[in-house]
Amino acid sequence: MQATELEWSQTEKDVARHAFDQAYDREIDDLVTIVRTQATKISALTDLWSLHDFLSARRHEIDGKYDFKYPGLLFVFARLVHDGWMKTEDLVGLEKDKIAKISALARMQ
Amino acid sequence: MQATELEWSQTEKDVARHAFDQAYDREIDDLVTIVRTQATKISALTDLWSLHDFLSARRHEIDGKYDFKYPGLLFVFARLVHDGWMKTEDLVGLEKDKIAKISALARMQ
Repeated sequence: MQATELEWSQTEKDVARHAFDQAYDREIDDLVTIVRTQATKISALTDLWSLHDFLSARRHEIDGKYDFKYPGLLFVFARLVHDGWMKTEDLVGLEKDKIAKISALARMQ
Repeated sequence: MQATELEWSQTEKDVARHAFDQAYDREIDDLVTIVRTQATKISALTDLWSLHDFLSARRHEIDGKYDFKYPGLLFVFARLVHDGWMKTEDLVGLEKDKIAKISALARMQ
């Protein structure tokens, strides 16, 4: 698959951006909940640094993962579908072929 | 002042270690409280990364500050006194000259 050669109509671009933002919001909401819960359990230095390590890792992962560029976007979306932050229903409006490729890639991971 | 030439009796070493550990525990307890409070206020990504930045800075500072080596210990203690984590009362048992130097250095900072 040559993701870099795909064409995106304006409607598809709007759908993709919305789905991307939704996935991002879902993952951040989840992370906020996790951190708030973890923070209530902090009682010692090791807990503090564990929280810090956890945030460092998630920040690095999220910064790298949410990269909205059309070349490669199917891979980004496949990962988000695989990880549960994006649903294929969010992608209605994209060409069926793109949705099929995202689903296939998500299953391969 | 030549801190490296100071001699420490066993009693003084015990007092110093205890005072050092007390200061550390106080600072960590304070940090735990701050982080738990900050965490309850997290609602967005910027809050998460602010907490992460805050923890990164405090970890770096604490790792560097709590260095228990006899050469230079008066400077370490002076900083802890200055920052409010160590009290001169904690140092009872050290030579008066050492306490006076720590107090003087703490005021200079």
